[in-house]
Amino acid sequence: MALKALAINCTLKFNPGEASSSDAMIAVLEQAFAERQVSITETVRVAALTIRPGVTSDEGDGDDWPALREKILAHDILIFGGPIWMGQIGSVAKRVLERMDAFLDETDDAGRMPSYGKVAVAAIVGNEDGAHFSSAQLFQALNDVGWTIPAVAACYWVGEAMGSTDFKDLDETPEMVAKTAKMVAGNAAHLAGLLKSAPYPG
Amino acid sequence: MALKALAINCTLKFNPGEASSSDAMIAVLEQAFAERQVSITETVRVAALTIRPGVTSDEGDGDDWPALREKILAHDILIFGGPIWMGQIGSVAKRVLERMDAFLDETDDAGRMPSYGKVAVAAIVGNEDGAHFSSAQLFQALNDVGWTIPAVAACYWVGEAMGSTDFKDLDETPEMVAKTAKMVAGNAAHLAGLLKSAPYPG
Amino acid sequence: MALKALAINCTLKFNPGEASSSDAMIAVLEQAFAERQVSITETVRVAALTIRPGVTSDEGDGDDWPALREKILAHDILIFGGPIWMGQIGSVAKRVLERMDAFLDETDDAGRMPSYGKVAVAAIVGNEDGAHFSSAQLFQALNDVGWTIPAVAACYWVGEAMGSTDFKDLDETPEMVAKTAKMVAGNAAHLAGLLKSAPYPG
Amino acid sequence: MALKALAINCTLKFNPGEASSSDAMIAVLEQAFAERQVSITETVRVAALTIRPGVTSDEGDGDDWPALREKILAHDILIFGGPIWMGQIGSVAKRVLERMDAFLDETDDAGRMPSYGKVAVAAIVGNEDGAHFSSAQLFQALNDVGWTIPAVAACYWVGEAMGSTDFKDLDETPEMVAKTAKMVAGNAAHLAGLLKSAPYPG
Repeated sequence: MALKALAINCTLKFNPGEASSSDAMIAVLEQAFAERQVSITETVRVAALTIRPGVTSDEGDGDDWPALREKILAHDILIFGGPIWMGQIGSVAKRVLERMDAFLDETDDAGRMPSYGKVAVAAIVGNEDGAHFSSAQLFQALNDVGWTIPAVAACYWVGEAMGSTDFKDLDETPEMVAKTAKMVAGNAAHLAGLLKSAPYPG
Repeated sequence: MALKALAINCTLKFNPGEASSSDAMIAVLEQAFAERQVSITETVRVAALTIRPGVTSDEGDGDDWPALREKILAHDILIFGGPIWMGQIGSVAKRVLERMDAFLDETDDAGRMPSYGKVAVAAIVGNEDGAHFSSAQLFQALNDVGWTIPAVAACYWVGEAMGSTDFKDLDETPEMVAKTAKMVAGNAAHLAGLLKSAPYPG
Repeated sequence: MALKALAINCTLKFNPGEASSSDAMIAVLEQAFAERQVSITETVRVAALTIRPGVTSDEGDGDDWPALREKILAHDILIFGGPIWMGQIGSVAKRVLERMDAFLDETDDAGRMPSYGKVAVAAIVGNEDGAHFSSAQLFQALNDVGWTIPAVAACYWVGEAMGSTDFKDLDETPEMVAKTAKMVAGNAAHLAGLLKSAPYPG
Repeated sequence: MALKALAINCTLKFNPGEASSSDAMIAVLEQAFAERQVSITETVRVAALTIRPGVTSDEGDGDDWPALREKILAHDILIFGGPIWMGQIGSVAKRVLERMDAFLDETDDAGRMPSYGKVAVAAIVGNEDGAHFSSAQLFQALNDVGWTIPAVAACYWVGEAMGSTDFKDLDETPEMVAKTAKMVAGNAAHLAGLLKSAPYPG
């Protein structure tokens, strides 16, 4: 069974044409996933959409969440990418997490949320410190609403404390990031395959 | 010197006419501040505004942040109110924090950010667990960009684990919340007064 | 293949004879795991041991970590139980997480840490708020060092904000806690079984 | 009125003779505080003491907390220093925070905890990422038990993501760290002076 991954880029930059370090990190993961025969079908620039505040699956009135929600649930693996701001995951990412709150009430007859059996990994970038705070926020929130977190599920980069270098401007991918990306992709692909073949019984 | 407080309500509900538990908590604090001769001049429903994603003080194109920023900086005390979602502070609150990132580059000749000498307190509500995670996020982020945090600066309420009661629907204010509100208001008013009389020298 | 679970109780109370709310929560999970044919072979009262500060697998001089480490790695499922203090997971739990830091350097030829293929779930209790902050800390730290987190991996209870009731003193297990325990156990047992049959390839 | 500061070093290394990056960061702050006429009377190596698990002010049986607690409360400023492990503040630091939980019940007739009127700042170091998560933990916990947090209260250093350099081994203090230390010390000294002259009324 072929596995499909979707990447969401939760940068604050709404223009998909504008270069984003989150995209650069997703690109590193894309190559690592390709080595595991998993293709990323699309990277969604979330800030280019209108994701309305709220905690239902459709907040009406031009809300782009219902379509993004369908897209996310049509894939086996979610690559949750986004930037650190103020030492924490950015507001666009938090908005996406919030919209998944509705999963709690969307269980099937066996009590399973729509996210059950899918795995999520994090792709986090920042000029400086905040990756662990961000992955803690992501893992706790995603797990609460049914996502499974494979071993070593965070691929991240930040520069030295109080630095200002962007990941997208590095001359080359740091060795540790490339190595971590391979672990993240390998573990995610393996676990998503297992869960696709044998879903949680509920 | 009379002190002025501004409250921001970071509920996800954009309609100011819609009842909000964050408003209910701000109301508890309003009374406690009144006992200390501090009036809340306004409660801003942030979701009713257009606060654009970004980390500058003006993201152009209909951005309501420049006006809200001015309003915040025209007061001595910020009551940062907002709801817990997914065990963490909501996305509207995170957006406001992000926009304050610009303070880091807006220092005066003595190296002081525009927030220096102002105090911030938190008003947090949720159906269930997440208040401490939220206040940790708020205090770290606000402090990074120059806000001072008075002793016991968080007034919060959540129900029992996995509950669904709203603070706004309680028959009466829990005694512990009322007691905490008095501490928060008393300490904030005292500290804001000291800092207004004797600003940080930078 | 029969699955084995180990529970660790990170209460601050060092005397195993002293009643602990973490034990009470572990007992709820024990019953839920039993329904999935998984038995908890033992609940380790960590504070009764000497777990020395440090980040290697053996800090010498009476260190009980090497034996606890072996015990943990001899099981398929880790039930990480502990109390909330100051809105965060307690210091005994943090000590255990720290000692697992050594896993990062203990990889096999395929680059796999000793925790690979094992799943971890959280059992968190407190008088009041802090469960999500605690599970965020646990999931991020455990995942960093190779643990897999099944869907809905946190079973927790806290009372109303600023309350003082202990979970161990409740007349009966709250319905939502019992329901969550079933989800946690069912998902953990399923996932641990899959990974035991088909380990991460590395 | 002369102000006195106490530094606590929450490294995991119990031997005070062993070099610690937390000590190196405290030394940077010591110089910055000296420029503000505040001397650090002592740096306490907490891991060299026996701080028993618990949440009372005296856990008996060789507990060194009562003496450390007295020392902390005899100063105007607390420099809370410690290392990042697993992306979060270390277990020795968490233990100290826990012991301060007792302050909540040790209020005077005006409802003031023993920490009221004292200010706390953070000195955080790590090989890599985790400083903001750590300062969020520290500020929330310290504030809950009555400490006041001056503007810009965290002085920290971490290297690039997944790096292994120790702060104590840097050839020179990074410019941004030195600059931040000056802000931290200047703000803390100013605020501690104000609060010493005019304590919270309660």
